[in-house]
Amino acid sequence: MRYLVRTSYNGAGFNGFQYQMEGRTVQGEIEKILQRMHKVPVRIHPAGRTDSGVHAREQYFHFDTDLNIPEPKWQHALNSAMPGDIAIHEVRRISPDYHIRHHSEGKAYRYRIYQGDIRDPFEKGLKTYYPYPLDEDRMREAMQHFVGTHDFTSFSSAKSPIENKVRHIYRFDLIRTENGYDFLIIGSGFLYNMVRILVAYVLEVGQGRWEASRTPQIIEAKDRTLVPKTAPAEGLYLERVFLDEASRNQALEKYNLIH
Amino acid sequence: MRYLVRTSYNGAGFNGFQYQMEGRTVQGEIEKILQRMHKVPVRIHPAGRTDSGVHAREQYFHFDTDLNIPEPKWQHALNSAMPGDIAIHEVRRISPDYHIRHHSEGKAYRYRIYQGDIRDPFEKGLKTYYPYPLDEDRMREAMQHFVGTHDFTSFSSAKSPIENKVRHIYRFDLIRTENGYDFLIIGSGFLYNMVRILVAYVLEVGQGRWEASRTPQIIEAKDRTLVPKTAPAEGLYLERVFLDEASRNQALEKYNLIH
Repeated sequence: MRYLVRTSYNGAGFNGFQYQMEGRTVQGEIEKILQRMHKVPVRIHPAGRTDSGVHAREQYFHFDTDLNIPEPKWQHALNSAMPGDIAIHEVRRISPDYHIRHHSEGKAYRYRIYQGDIRDPFEKGLKTYYPYPLDEDRMREAMQHFVGTHDFTSFSSAKSPIENKVRHIYRFDLIRTENGYDFLIIGSGFLYNMVRILVAYVLEVGQGRWEASRTPQIIEAKDRTLVPKTAPAEGLYLERVFLDEASRNQALEKYNLIH
Repeated sequence: MRYLVRTSYNGAGFNGFQYQMEGRTVQGEIEKILQRMHKVPVRIHPAGRTDSGVHAREQYFHFDTDLNIPEPKWQHALNSAMPGDIAIHEVRRISPDYHIRHHSEGKAYRYRIYQGDIRDPFEKGLKTYYPYPLDEDRMREAMQHFVGTHDFTSFSSAKSPIENKVRHIYRFDLIRTENGYDFLIIGSGFLYNMVRILVAYVLEVGQGRWEASRTPQIIEAKDRTLVPKTAPAEGLYLERVFLDEASRNQALEKYNLIH
């Protein structure tokens, strides 16, 4: 039987999602619990990995099991064993030929910064501190240039082995918060480090280091060296994974995706 | 020269305030930075210690120095060396015979709980998870019995060596938050574990395990064994330290002390 699990986690205490020999990872913690229940190793398959320090408000994974636990009991069974920084929101049985990597219809990411004269100890690990003055209009102008279908070579890690760097961005919004800004981006898919590079670039535009109107040229150049910065991991949240077009379209209609 | 420092810290990453040979402490981190600046050990004196995992939105300490740094430069000099979970809000020169322990006119503590069907990974270390149903009216009734001057033997750690357990509570308020409750208490001073024991008791009243009207009897009994629980450290915040009566009276007039 294959089960699909909706989870969230606070990335501050993890060396990323993917299992490693050394260091605490989300996959490692979850597989340890499944192994304890099954007495044999159980592999989980996520919608996507997240890097060290990156959070997920919504992430999916699936796993196969022979355990005779009724579907409605799984959530509690898993939650009662999970550490405090991973939560299980839903567990449902799916077809044994379903594979999340092939069925998801895009993702939403949120990047959170806060401003102010000094660092806030209670934002540590949760938002990126960015004390420099920002021009909202310039940022919004730059962000709109990314909406649509583009080759994101200039805005992805040069280390990525993926050859096709064309992706579709549905929305890229700037949201004023209590003490800073959230950047919310919805796309068909994202290249390695792409959100963190886009945000680093938009912040530099907001500071006046780049002209927003030059953005199309930088995209066109397909040259990663033009945009050398990557925003820190601690501000990044995987916000939604869209399992079908309907849920993606619904999200696109709403301004604020927090649910 | 003696300087008084206003600081805040996220207690999640510390084994309490007080210096220890092993483990990361607030005092240890700050004294390490001062020693690096002074080339000799420098001792800091806080308004009060906080236990492992307990936070401070406002804490004061003072220290003596011979360094020739102008008063307005100290804040930045300290902040630029502090780890992300300690912030320095103000540094001011005070009389060399000032001692914060003898001059403070009370404190305010906040205790934060959140409710919901499952734990929230993003509240980890910041609020205590308390999923049980609570009766607000019962809690408010119990809380009012603590306001005034009482012997708090029944509500303090039996390990405390302090003989006089009489303290004055000015206010004890229940505040509804987005996902739970804050308990806000303002007093002349607090015994060891007193806030965490008071909150544990009020939560039990809220669950219906005790009658709120029995509270005066429990206070009168002066017997710690009647109230056996202590609420976890992670929900507790030292919220204010009142350096004089005027600031305490000002705070007492306001409902919400977050500033």
